[in-house]
Amino acid sequence: MLSETPDRSSLESLREGQNFIQQLSIDCVIVGYEANEVKVLVPNLNVGKRIYALPSGFIRQEESIEGAARRIIEDRTGITDFYLHQFGVYGAAGRTNRPYFNRLIGGALERQGLNPHITQELEWITRRFVSIGYYALVDLTAVTPRKSPSDTSIRWTEVDVLPDLIMDHNQMIADALSTIRLQFDEGRLAFYLLPEQFTMKEVKRLYETVFQRPFARNNFQKKILDLDALERVSKKFTGASNRAPYLYRFPRRWTAY
Amino acid sequence: MLSETPDRSSLESLREGQNFIQQLSIDCVIVGYEANEVKVLVPNLNVGKRIYALPSGFIRQEESIEGAARRIIEDRTGITDFYLHQFGVYGAAGRTNRPYFNRLIGGALERQGLNPHITQELEWITRRFVSIGYYALVDLTAVTPRKSPSDTSIRWTEVDVLPDLIMDHNQMIADALSTIRLQFDEGRLAFYLLPEQFTMKEVKRLYETVFQRPFARNNFQKKILDLDALERVSKKFTGASNRAPYLYRFPRRWTAY
Repeated sequence: MLSETPDRSSLESLREGQNFIQQLSIDCVIVGYEANEVKVLVPNLNVGKRIYALPSGFIRQEESIEGAARRIIEDRTGITDFYLHQFGVYGAAGRTNRPYFNRLIGGALERQGLNPHITQELEWITRRFVSIGYYALVDLTAVTPRKSPSDTSIRWTEVDVLPDLIMDHNQMIADALSTIRLQFDEGRLAFYLLPEQFTMKEVKRLYETVFQRPFARNNFQKKILDLDALERVSKKFTGASNRAPYLYRFPRRWTAY
Repeated sequence: MLSETPDRSSLESLREGQNFIQQLSIDCVIVGYEANEVKVLVPNLNVGKRIYALPSGFIRQEESIEGAARRIIEDRTGITDFYLHQFGVYGAAGRTNRPYFNRLIGGALERQGLNPHITQELEWITRRFVSIGYYALVDLTAVTPRKSPSDTSIRWTEVDVLPDLIMDHNQMIADALSTIRLQFDEGRLAFYLLPEQFTMKEVKRLYETVFQRPFARNNFQKKILDLDALERVSKKFTGASNRAPYLYRFPRRWTAY
C-alpha cells in the first residue's frame, strides 16, 4: 500500500479508516497442504527489504469480525469455500507495527514536514493494535494467491522454512498450527485441506505430515471411515484395476457452501 | 454505575473512557466450585429490573489485554491467584448493550435535552463493541465477591440455574464451560478450583460435577496421581485413623504466584 515515498494516492486505501474499528485488526493464517508439506500463505511487503507479514485487515463498523476475516481471506485466495476458526487474540501493551512500517516507508514517519493529512493517517495505522487471529484451512489446488495493494509478492511457504515475520506473526502461525493439531480429529479438519477427491493414502500422508509420525495403515483407515464423514466415489483408474485405490470425497464441505 | 436518572457524578468512571481502547471490551466468566456445583460470579446491575451481566471492563491504552482481564477479575474477587484463559471473541455486527443500558437508566438515552457531555459519554459506552471472553478458575473459598460501582449485587450462581444475562453473555458462559471441559485433563485445571488441601474423593466429585457422569474410584485415583502434579500432605484426622483419607495439595498453584 505504501511505496518508498508515501504520497496521497498510495494512502487512498487508508482513508476508509474512518469506517473501521480503531486499534483492532485481524491477522489470518491461511493454511494449505501440498506435496507432503503444510504451507502458509505469506505476503512480502517489500521485495528489497523482505518485510513479511500475515494477511491482515481491519473490521468495518457494519461487519462482524468473522465477516471481516472471510473478506480478508477471500481477497487473498479468490475462494469462498474454506474452514475458518478464531484461535487467539494478541494484545500486549504497546503492540504496534510502527518500527516495521517506518522501515517500509524509508523512515518517513520520522521525517518532518509531511503533509499533515498523511501524518494523521500514518498515526492511525501505527497506533497500538489488538489483533484477532484466525486460521483458514483451504484446498491449495483451488487457490490462486492474490497480492493486496500493499504486497509486492505473496506465496505459499512451507511451515518449517518460514522467514521472520513482523511483530508476533511467527508466534501466531505457531499457535494456529498447534490449535489445528489439537482439533484435527474431532473437527474432521483434514478434509478441508484436500482436493475434492482423494485416496485414503493421501489422507494418511496428510495426517503423517501434520503430526510428524507414521500411522498404521489398517487402523488408520478404520479410524477415518468410522468418522462417517466420507463418501466413496469410484475406483481410480490406474490400468491395473484390481489394485486401484478407492477415491473418497467429503460431502459436507462440498455442499455446505 | 448509573442510577435511574443519570447525573454527572454517576458517570464519573466513564470519563476514563478517553484512555481506553474504543469499541473493545473484556467479559469475564469467573468460575468456582462448591458443594458439588459449578458456579459463576454474576453481578446484577439493577435489583428491581434484574439486569444481569458478566463482570466486564475496558482495556487501558497502556495495559495488555490479559492485564485488563486480571484487573477486572481481581476487582471482583479480591484474589490474584487464579487460572486465566482467553476462550473467544464476540464480534457480531451491531453488537451493542444499548437496549439494556437504556432500560437500566429508565429510557434516558431516548430523552431529549440531556447534558451534551453526558450524551457523549453514553454514546461512547453504547456503541458497537467487540468483546474478548476470558474465563478464570478460582478457589471459591478464597473469594469475597465484590460489587463494582455499577452493580447492585453480585453472587455465585449455579451454572444450571443462570438467569438471562444481557447480550450474548449466556452464550459466553456456555462457551467458557465447554472450553473448560475440553481442557480439564491436560491443563490440570481441576486443582485451581479446589481449596489448598483436598482429598481424592473431592477431586473425583469435582470431575463428576464437571462431566456429569460417575468415575470409577480406583482408575480415577491412578489417573490423577499419574499426572504427577500433586503432593500428599498428611492424613486427615477423623478419629478413625485407619479410614482417614490422604490430603493432597497442588504445589504449582501455591508457589507459582
